[in-house]
Amino acid sequence: MHDVKFYYFPVKGLGECVRLLLSYGGQDFEDNRVAMEDWPAFKPSTPFGQMPVLEIDGKAYAQSIDISRYLGRKYGLSGVDAEEDLEIDQNVDFVNDIRAKAAAVQYEANAELKARNHAEFSKNVYPVLLEKLDEIIKKNNGHIAAGKLTWADFVFAGMFDYLKMMLRIPDLEKKYPSYQQVIDAVYSQPKIQAYVKKAQQL
Amino acid sequence: MHDVKFYYFPVKGLGECVRLLLSYGGQDFEDNRVAMEDWPAFKPSTPFGQMPVLEIDGKAYAQSIDISRYLGRKYGLSGVDAEEDLEIDQNVDFVNDIRAKAAAVQYEANAELKARNHAEFSKNVYPVLLEKLDEIIKKNNGHIAAGKLTWADFVFAGMFDYLKMMLRIPDLEKKYPSYQQVIDAVYSQPKIQAYVKKAQQL
Repeated sequence: MHDVKFYYFPVKGLGECVRLLLSYGGQDFEDNRVAMEDWPAFKPSTPFGQMPVLEIDGKAYAQSIDISRYLGRKYGLSGVDAEEDLEIDQNVDFVNDIRAKAAAVQYEANAELKARNHAEFSKNVYPVLLEKLDEIIKKNNGHIAAGKLTWADFVFAGMFDYLKMMLRIPDLEKKYPSYQQVIDAVYSQPKIQAYVKKAQQL
Repeated sequence: MHDVKFYYFPVKGLGECVRLLLSYGGQDFEDNRVAMEDWPAFKPSTPFGQMPVLEIDGKAYAQSIDISRYLGRKYGLSGVDAEEDLEIDQNVDFVNDIRAKAAAVQYEANAELKARNHAEFSKNVYPVLLEKLDEIIKKNNGHIAAGKLTWADFVFAGMFDYLKMMLRIPDLEKKYPSYQQVIDAVYSQPKIQAYVKKAQQL
């Protein structure tokens, strides 16, 4: 078994999908939750000055989606062939594009501009994307891609709370029951339930 | 051989890497260059309302990086194992993050804000990222990842003109000769030279 260490802030954010996938794979890992005040000292040692970081047998890797793809491949959560993998990848990127758009609004420093952008995106951008995602999940039997449980579901479930916060739609899963289906597909896994119990004590 | 159709605007932009990879793989493909005035009519038929789109035997796929990963796998341009694939993926995402930051500045509609952001990013954001990329390429023998020619080099070479334009650094490859090495590694391939000749006549 590999020696695996994971590093991320003490939030779900972009890192939770990696914790979920490692747990699903039954991989023991150091779940390092780096406090904001410790981050500047740790930052220069990371591949790109970013977290999350996954360290496997001493080698550090960055980028949450890429790490998730890698773990999905390890744990039998990828496609049956190159075409299905491409479908999973493109749907994950579609989900990630929604997050990136919401993040661009959320992290705008100018408060007035942020409020204006949020109003504009909430009216003209988010609804179209969220409808499209709903359509994709329905077409895939309650999953993000390939009509079955894949690492894409873990990416979505892991970032869901963060996404809702940025979109400012606290009942998002009630508006789109298909989203709840994806979350349930992940969180109903026995190993994920065990992880959630353990994480609550951190 | 598959029936392959590619759709993108008549520019290099985000689509050129796919044209380069298809050419490298010796894959015959319809190189559809969709004029801006024809795009609104075509848009609803694409997976996510975006181009590029690659159609393989009638099935359409979106997202240029994901399509490039797929083609890299098909044409022997990916890693030797899951760990090397992860390294390629994370380095491609690092390159793509630079592009995305520059695009966020470039596509700001407010001219005053755009000018301010460009000045700020040119001073405090781009230099650090471009230095880091230079360091990555040097460590990888003139390649983006894995110390050899991979699909990552095609992604970088394909987007290079677009990146330079957005960064407003017309002599970027002179400032960083390592960048030129990556471009040469791609454009020195005989099938790429044949493609470039053909594309000049389009």
